[in-house]
Amino acid sequence: MTDFKEKVLDLHKRNTGKLDILPNVSLASQDDLSMAYTPGVALPCLEIKKDINKAYEYTIKGKTVAIVTDGSAVLGLGNIGPEASLPVMEGKAALLHQFSGIQAYPIALKTQDPDTIIQTIKLLEPNFSAIMLEDISAPNCVYIESRLQKEIDIPVFHDDQHGTAIVVLAALINSLKIVDKKIEDIKVVVTGLGAAGSAIIKLLHKLGVKHIYGYDLMGVVKKSNYNNYNFVIKQLIDDSILSYDDVSNDLEELLHKKDVFIGVSAKDILKPSMIQHMNDDPIVFAMANPDPEILPDLAKKAGVKIIGTGRSDFPNQINNVLVFPGLMKGVLKSKVKTIHDDIKIAAAKAIAQMVPSESLSEENILPNIFNKAVVKEIENAILSTIKKD
Amino acid sequence: MTDFKEKVLDLHKRNTGKLDILPNVSLASQDDLSMAYTPGVALPCLEIKKDINKAYEYTIKGKTVAIVTDGSAVLGLGNIGPEASLPVMEGKAALLHQFSGIQAYPIALKTQDPDTIIQTIKLLEPNFSAIMLEDISAPNCVYIESRLQKEIDIPVFHDDQHGTAIVVLAALINSLKIVDKKIEDIKVVVTGLGAAGSAIIKLLHKLGVKHIYGYDLMGVVKKSNYNNYNFVIKQLIDDSILSYDDVSNDLEELLHKKDVFIGVSAKDILKPSMIQHMNDDPIVFAMANPDPEILPDLAKKAGVKIIGTGRSDFPNQINNVLVFPGLMKGVLKSKVKTIHDDIKIAAAKAIAQMVPSESLSEENILPNIFNKAVVKEIENAILSTIKKD
Repeated sequence: MTDFKEKVLDLHKRNTGKLDILPNVSLASQDDLSMAYTPGVALPCLEIKKDINKAYEYTIKGKTVAIVTDGSAVLGLGNIGPEASLPVMEGKAALLHQFSGIQAYPIALKTQDPDTIIQTIKLLEPNFSAIMLEDISAPNCVYIESRLQKEIDIPVFHDDQHGTAIVVLAALINSLKIVDKKIEDIKVVVTGLGAAGSAIIKLLHKLGVKHIYGYDLMGVVKKSNYNNYNFVIKQLIDDSILSYDDVSNDLEELLHKKDVFIGVSAKDILKPSMIQHMNDDPIVFAMANPDPEILPDLAKKAGVKIIGTGRSDFPNQINNVLVFPGLMKGVLKSKVKTIHDDIKIAAAKAIAQMVPSESLSEENILPNIFNKAVVKEIENAILSTIKKD
Repeated sequence: MTDFKEKVLDLHKRNTGKLDILPNVSLASQDDLSMAYTPGVALPCLEIKKDINKAYEYTIKGKTVAIVTDGSAVLGLGNIGPEASLPVMEGKAALLHQFSGIQAYPIALKTQDPDTIIQTIKLLEPNFSAIMLEDISAPNCVYIESRLQKEIDIPVFHDDQHGTAIVVLAALINSLKIVDKKIEDIKVVVTGLGAAGSAIIKLLHKLGVKHIYGYDLMGVVKKSNYNNYNFVIKQLIDDSILSYDDVSNDLEELLHKKDVFIGVSAKDILKPSMIQHMNDDPIVFAMANPDPEILPDLAKKAGVKIIGTGRSDFPNQINNVLVFPGLMKGVLKSKVKTIHDDIKIAAAKAIAQMVPSESLSEENILPNIFNKAVVKEIENAILSTIKKD
């Protein structure tokens, strides 16, 4: 066993997981018990019975987010099932608390049927302030999220979709400042049309990007291929969000005269040769994990101006840990029920603005994930957006 | 608002509920993140994927009990719904941790359909070491528990049934020492045939009590009335666990020449006059909450030798907080999958033995709930019982 492996497994074993559920009240005397348990506990129960919203004041519902998965698309590990996904869910809960102070509880469900997942989350609603969906495979995740948003009274957020889309948008906003291009002029290729890819495309469109090409194992998305796509991509086609003036299934040809490559797809698919005919100052976000679509040094040698990846060991880490802590904080504080696109764009702009123009550079397009001011800025941006509505 | 009410509501509001979910790992640096989150977190995930039982080592599953309710029978408050039941579930989780160190998470479900509750708990199984059912109305609770015990791989315990039955048994064992009667000779009347009453009857029978009479709003349980009972009472009749030689529907007549009255029913139903024709040295456990079937001073005046209630402000508090912390500890440590009757009886005997003969008296039949040795004794008793099997 390598040193790193041993250290990591020991970290997970030492306290049996990475979270603790602990009482915050004293229970040392009969008096304590009579307040925290019977007979006193009947008083908050009755207050909540009179007004169900009091659960937000008197119970952990008011401060707790559920992190729900079915274990079907965990990290780059794929469909590893609910038990094996728990370390990731606990890690996410720990991160959320570390960066925002919000408490979260991981729930890995023993089903991968989207309707059963929806039904179960509806039954769990009384316990939580919000639901974060995690590592559920596409297109189920899109279906689950959109139905839940309509059918439950607490906000639902699928980080793999929107967290990724928001941080990509932030990275793009700042990159465009460096290369001095306008959002409405750029041509963008997105590779990988799963949860992240489709959400990125929708949010780019919402921000005003006019030329977006979707690309996956079937090649570039074309209207003629409509029936071979899932309902998420069909919707992008129906809404004319994707562009079809260039329909080559060859990625190199597709990248011809494009400005931005955004990869949420697979290792090494972007070859140096493909970059040569992109427009000047190409921007590449190669976010496949753990191995990006192209390694930064190769990309740079091939003429890329700005390269970002999901990794912390290269400059420009594009990681949704920049997003979800502040976003959940703003959402819980504002008591908004649906996290609509305006909120997502406000969050992206808030993140982008955290890099002051004097320190903005090709190697520094996003704030550091440990910069605590980011959470506060996103929270404030969301609160102002909601006031404006 | 009374002082007490204000103090209790403030206690529940101060930290938004009585539990906190907190990370137990450091997340202050990139190195920390690479161990608790990506890429390191993939290592425990893959270990669990290879061997699902490793979830007990690497995740909170290994130390966490779910406390599940549907809010249908909460304390003496009745069917107050899931949100309003949360303070009780949190209190129970806090108590469990205080007395046993076991962590627990409360889950209040937005359904009261027993099959949906069963289905949901099955979907939640990957996350927990055991399930405690709480405050689910009878007979649903019996149906839910018995099906779950067969259908899931983790132990299920309904405290309102078995916690109560076990502590009543412990109180009875010690009371019989004081009045010098044998378990096989006594005649017992149980009033209230809900979750607690039916479980008490079953466990009394298992311990060797030969004459048990069930009594509820329909009067004494008779074979001729079979079709008017739910499946739980029908089962008691089918198994000849109840006695039918005395079939008066008058509680006073029924108590004639009986030794023990166990009430899990309603306030004030036991009148002093009813006690006069009981056998010598009557034992009365009047456990309706918060107002017992008879108050201790009235019972004593009417000739009762030993009276216990559920309340802490009288001697002989018969409270399942004496049971569930030690029981859950023994169950989790022994890794037993089903909490069968031998385990329950071992727990009852362990509790009874915690009152040494020199301090056993009419006013001291049970150990104090704050006596920390009780948990350890129950745990040891369970471990020995399981070794013997």
